Amino acid sequence: METWQAINTLRVVREFSERAIEPPELERILNAGRRTGSSKNDQHWAFVVVRDRDHLRELAAVGHYAGHLAGATLAIALVTPDASGHYDNSVMWDCGRAAQSMVLAAWELGIGSVPATVYDHALAHRLLGLPEDRRCDFLLSFGYPADASVLTRPSRAGGRLSLEELVHEERW
Amino acid sequence: METWQAINTLRVVREFSERAIEPPELERILNAGRRTGSSKNDQHWAFVVVRDRDHLRELAAVGHYAGHLAGATLAIALVTPDASGHYDNSVMWDCGRAAQSMVLAAWELGIGSVPATVYDHALAHRLLGLPEDRRCDFLLSFGYPADASVLTRPSRAGGRLSLEELVHEERW
Repeated sequence: METWQAINTLRVVREFSERAIEPPELERILNAGRRTGSSKNDQHWAFVVVRDRDHLRELAAVGHYAGHLAGATLAIALVTPDASGHYDNSVMWDCGRAAQSMVLAAWELGIGSVPATVYDHALAHRLLGLPEDRRCDFLLSFGYPADASVLTRPSRAGGRLSLEELVHEERW
Repeated sequence: METWQAINTLRVVREFSERAIEPPELERILNAGRRTGSSKNDQHWAFVVVRDRDHLRELAAVGHYAGHLAGATLAIALVTPDASGHYDNSVMWDCGRAAQSMVLAAWELGIGSVPATVYDHALAHRLLGLPEDRRCDFLLSFGYPADASVLTRPSRAGGRLSLEELVHEERW
């Protein structure tokens, strides 16, 4: 799948089929994150791959909209340093870049995904067994879509602001 | 270019040729950002396209490593809300995702890029003419590479941590 096509056709998938994600597919998705550029090449991220159904169900409680984790084929938790108790902006910016690489690499394989935002950080910390100096703000659910038609579905009209609304020339 | 190939071959480009970025190419790059998913579909971003050479030279002073802006064919500043004086993590995560979509869409076209981190926020705010309630933490320089061989250069050994160093199974 051409890069622009992947970017333009990407849809959020919240319901997943029983079809397994094979090891080479998972490896490609993880490598897509791993290969992503980061500020000063810090690579301040780690990836926890969760597949156990009970564990995924427990993780579904970390956020208000994280229920999709319960039905994911697997989830990847993005873990970052938490030395100072807060992030500098570049950590989350870099993680977002790595996530987008993973999501697009998956989509090319026909694998859907959706991010989950962590609200209950203590719960995520405990369930993922993180050290004191690490935290998780986002997980990604992955799986083949329950409804394969999502892979070719046209984008919803009005789902995004127009370029005219978003773009400024030279100055605001 | 296939999606995985774009992700895997992407290199940072800091020096750019004189070749223009044509309007349809810029539109595709901007649309790649625009089409990217965001938390609750908030799309809390705007894009300021900077092309004036003097303006680009001024912007090169916003960060310690932002000198590449002076020689960019154009730059795109990612602008976000700044209502509370700080970001929630999802704003920067979403911006990182949009940036990665733009960077990959450009790469497929043979256009290189590199991010600049803003250190002098007051200067960026003034140069971009931002309203009080907006801020810019990152800009992207774009242009055809001065050295076209970067487009096919193998990745540098040791440039990235290995999967073994990054990936945990089920728990940390």
